[in-house]
Amino acid sequence: MENSSNNRRNFIKKAVMGGFMAVSIPEILSASMVPSAMRKNSLTKDNIILFQGDSITDSGRNRDDNSFNNAGALGSGYPMLAGAALIEKYASLNLKVYNKGVSGNKVYQLAERWDSDCLDIKPDILSILIGVNDIWHKLNGQYNGTVEIYRHDYIALLERTKKALPNVKLIICEPFAVPGVKAVDDKWYPEFYGYQKAAMEIAAQFKATFIPYQRIYNEAITRAPGVYWTGDGVHPTLAGAQLMAQAWVEAVKA
Amino acid sequence: MENSSNNRRNFIKKAVMGGFMAVSIPEILSASMVPSAMRKNSLTKDNIILFQGDSITDSGRNRDDNSFNNAGALGSGYPMLAGAALIEKYASLNLKVYNKGVSGNKVYQLAERWDSDCLDIKPDILSILIGVNDIWHKLNGQYNGTVEIYRHDYIALLERTKKALPNVKLIICEPFAVPGVKAVDDKWYPEFYGYQKAAMEIAAQFKATFIPYQRIYNEAITRAPGVYWTGDGVHPTLAGAQLMAQAWVEAVKA
Repeated sequence: MENSSNNRRNFIKKAVMGGFMAVSIPEILSASMVPSAMRKNSLTKDNIILFQGDSITDSGRNRDDNSFNNAGALGSGYPMLAGAALIEKYASLNLKVYNKGVSGNKVYQLAERWDSDCLDIKPDILSILIGVNDIWHKLNGQYNGTVEIYRHDYIALLERTKKALPNVKLIICEPFAVPGVKAVDDKWYPEFYGYQKAAMEIAAQFKATFIPYQRIYNEAITRAPGVYWTGDGVHPTLAGAQLMAQAWVEAVKA
Repeated sequence: MENSSNNRRNFIKKAVMGGFMAVSIPEILSASMVPSAMRKNSLTKDNIILFQGDSITDSGRNRDDNSFNNAGALGSGYPMLAGAALIEKYASLNLKVYNKGVSGNKVYQLAERWDSDCLDIKPDILSILIGVNDIWHKLNGQYNGTVEIYRHDYIALLERTKKALPNVKLIICEPFAVPGVKAVDDKWYPEFYGYQKAAMEIAAQFKATFIPYQRIYNEAITRAPGVYWTGDGVHPTLAGAQLMAQAWVEAVKA
């Protein structure tokens, strides 16, 4: 019988290192966004950028505020930090940055509010980060999902989106977790890898830019402990949100 | 008798261009922070960074939250955006970033709360942005200040600070306004230039880094209209706050 603390160490090591080589953030970004991702998305004048997802995207935004480009409407997470960077860097483009993430959402819940919270906004660039609740709520006993349901629902959502908005540019963000921090224990694995793989394959299928957030967090925890980047293994701290925002900004260009 | 619309145009042109040549932001930053500023401030492990000032610094922070490195305690302005960038970039240094700006403050009001809101925190790097209310509240009839009172009070505050914290590194931020936007009319000038000159001279006297925010805003309004960067001429939008945060981050190095 193996020692359980050894098991835990091995689990963390394996989960963190899975496929990951020690390289710098710029190397990670340039290497990983290009292959599955094709290219940076070109921004043009008056473009509308929409962030969609769950609590990580929601990040305490004021849901009664339907405006754009301000901290109240954008929350205090990566959409606000990326939005701030974008509207400063590309000031002459007059971008409009919206956030419609809703805490607790799984893919089918995005679908339920997709007309008003996505299609009606007519984004030119649509960013989606979804998946962590699909497994987390299952582990909590609140939801009966599988990777196949996630994949099926996600593809249906994107097909519906491309039909309504044929020219929309898609950015698919990899769902991520930091193993060993609070909520994220070994019950997540290997199943969670399936969700991450599905997200990457869906990005390829839809020629979307794929942002490899798991690899970005894996690199980050070589610089500071996991709790520095996420308090519970899932929700980013301000430092984690900045990490994500920087990677996101690299997915577009003027 | 001159045409009043011509007067206004001339005023705006003069106010905006005063001493300003069309150069890029990196040129502005490198050229202007070095002379009055000496150098970038070195950050070391476990450093405490404190942002102090008025509403521009306060930026809606939760004043009951005495913690650091999170959006609630840091607000939604340049201290939060600079803080996010700093704690991501220098993750291994374990920085603590605080914001204790209070809306409406003039220099003497910083002095009134300086023990608890600065000296007790023992910052390694202290950033101060103050001055716009010293003139604004005077124009409103709420305050009887002058440039000389501002200069005298500011010097006294910094002498007190250096006495209590001899090794503190000071960053003095230039008070700024965007002429022609809402609150900022020709009654501000030329008096407001006196406050800006005083801030720069005080920075030199105390060997502080000086961040030339007026020049940074002057450059920004060549990229997008004044209201894009500040809604009322004084308070930054999210884009304006990002502009300020980026400049601030340039004032330190590892």
